[in-house]
Amino acid sequence: FDGFAVDLVPCFRVERAADVRSAVDRTPFHTWYLDSRLDAALAADVRLAKAFLSTIGVYGSDLRTRGFSGYLVELLVCEHGAFRSLLAAAADWRPPVRFDPEGHGDARRESFDDPLVVVDPTDPGRNVAAVLSTANLARFQHYARDLLVDPRESAFVADPPTPLAADEVRAEIEHRGTIPVAVRFDAPDLVADQLYPQLERSRRGVAEALDRRGFDPLRSAAFADDSAALFVELAVAERPAIERHEGPPVSAREHATAFHEKYADTDCYGPFIDGGRYVVERERTFPSPRTFLESDALFDVALGADVERALAAGYTVLVGEETARLADEFGAELARHFAPKP
Amino acid sequence: FDGFAVDLVPCFRVERAADVRSAVDRTPFHTWYLDSRLDAALAADVRLAKAFLSTIGVYGSDLRTRGFSGYLVELLVCEHGAFRSLLAAAADWRPPVRFDPEGHGDARRESFDDPLVVVDPTDPGRNVAAVLSTANLARFQHYARDLLVDPRESAFVADPPTPLAADEVRAEIEHRGTIPVAVRFDAPDLVADQLYPQLERSRRGVAEALDRRGFDPLRSAAFADDSAALFVELAVAERPAIERHEGPPVSAREHATAFHEKYADTDCYGPFIDGGRYVVERERTFPSPRTFLESDALFDVALGADVERALAAGYTVLVGEETARLADEFGAELARHFAPKP
Repeated sequence: FDGFAVDLVPCFRVERAADVRSAVDRTPFHTWYLDSRLDAALAADVRLAKAFLSTIGVYGSDLRTRGFSGYLVELLVCEHGAFRSLLAAAADWRPPVRFDPEGHGDARRESFDDPLVVVDPTDPGRNVAAVLSTANLARFQHYARDLLVDPRESAFVADPPTPLAADEVRAEIEHRGTIPVAVRFDAPDLVADQLYPQLERSRRGVAEALDRRGFDPLRSAAFADDSAALFVELAVAERPAIERHEGPPVSAREHATAFHEKYADTDCYGPFIDGGRYVVERERTFPSPRTFLESDALFDVALGADVERALAAGYTVLVGEETARLADEFGAELARHFAPKP
Repeated sequence: FDGFAVDLVPCFRVERAADVRSAVDRTPFHTWYLDSRLDAALAADVRLAKAFLSTIGVYGSDLRTRGFSGYLVELLVCEHGAFRSLLAAAADWRPPVRFDPEGHGDARRESFDDPLVVVDPTDPGRNVAAVLSTANLARFQHYARDLLVDPRESAFVADPPTPLAADEVRAEIEHRGTIPVAVRFDAPDLVADQLYPQLERSRRGVAEALDRRGFDPLRSAAFADDSAALFVELAVAERPAIERHEGPPVSAREHATAFHEKYADTDCYGPFIDGGRYVVERERTFPSPRTFLESDALFDVALGADVERALAAGYTVLVGEETARLADEFGAELARHFAPKP
């Protein structure tokens, strides 16, 4: 329409926002509420705030961004009277921070354990900032302080990182002396709000599994485009052929005897005694991250259901410099990983 | 005398064992006490018990052995009426275990937190088993069960390990896939009761320091003869060039700003935000065990005073296969380390 694409979204007409039957049913209430409160000056500050949050990457309440929704920004600007006052206040926030524009009171306060709580003026049971992550709130505080110290137009213009080329990724790995690993697979065909929570869950699961096996993850990230990648940068490349396995206290006769009998005539080292316990050193199942990632044990990790299905259909394990191959598709993501900013 | 070497040890004559002025003043009281209780059969069982404990390496209350003193064995055999009854009882002990042959009572019980307590019949304030280590008590329990299952004369004949040669040490390292390191220096000229506690303290200090720096010690030992060695077998050979360093929560404005300013224009990666905190990845001081062990930071470790002095006079750091050189002096100790028994 007139050069713009227009989405028409139908909703139920309900009596009160608390009676919503679909997520969008709240929108008319939000519009009515703000129409009566936003004048031209506040509306201009709202636009400024949205541009700023967008630039620092925390605008949007979708589950990929986990940032500030439009409505949340509008309420925060109203609450503080201006964008600049919001910045000044945010610079000093000590989460958890709570706003309750319509004074709905503490009745349901216990149910919000989010770092930022803004009680919905049209629905006292709802925290408008529920989806905002702790890290994104901290980001807003960081950049608010930064802008107050040095107010400048460029803070409202996105400055996306230059994607890294494969040889630049290799140079970073060499410089950091780390061992990045990646599991790469076909991205499940899902909307972002379904895909990213699953990728996040899978990333955390794989990183924790590598941690438990002694490979000491430094940082990790999940990427998605045509393919998807769970990327974990490790501090440890290799574990010994053996691992320590602690048995029961020798004084717990029944368990101790069973443990001793189980391991006495095996290839293990021991049983020997450390403190008051039996200990053996037995063959380690996964002496390298690759042996773990290529094994079926990967599927014991808590993965998202669609990610698990995608992995079952096939995946590639990249270790060390091999991860530089991800640069063809995820150069920008790798640039962000290797030059991390707040 | 008559083919035996005799040590004459003078002592103070005191009225009661509790009034001792030197450690040996108790001996006459112990002798009087046992003379009235040990008959020929019990005395034979005491000799058997001592031979057995000696064979399994836990006889002696010196601070190297930290085992059973002669007097302790005598009291335990008296208490149980026979060596075999002692074995049967010990097999079921659940430490802490307490004996009080003369019923001195609980008055001072709180002051003993040793795994085995035998209240001295001649001095209620003293635990005869105070020096016995948890591991050696567990060893006794293990071998007691073993002997009860399979009574045999050979259990009373020591079977010392065949010392490992250097190439055998190298083969073990290869097989285990570990990274042994050693700090070797001239053994301080001290009696064993002073030397071994210092070595033990130093061994623990060095192992903990390597652990804190991410090299994950698997086991460690201290050796002493002409030279001395603190030997730590590591699971991790190398750490990245960088290390994670967590800063304050971004919301703690003053600390957060100071942290950000400190690291913002340095060679560090970051500051970036993880959870609600600033984090940087900065250059790691000790990327390998050798860099740590050869640095002055070794002297920040809790070392025994004489060990510290000996190290200050000079030491050698051995890493990986280089530790095989220890076999010329400590082949038996290395055999025990690489073929650990209860």
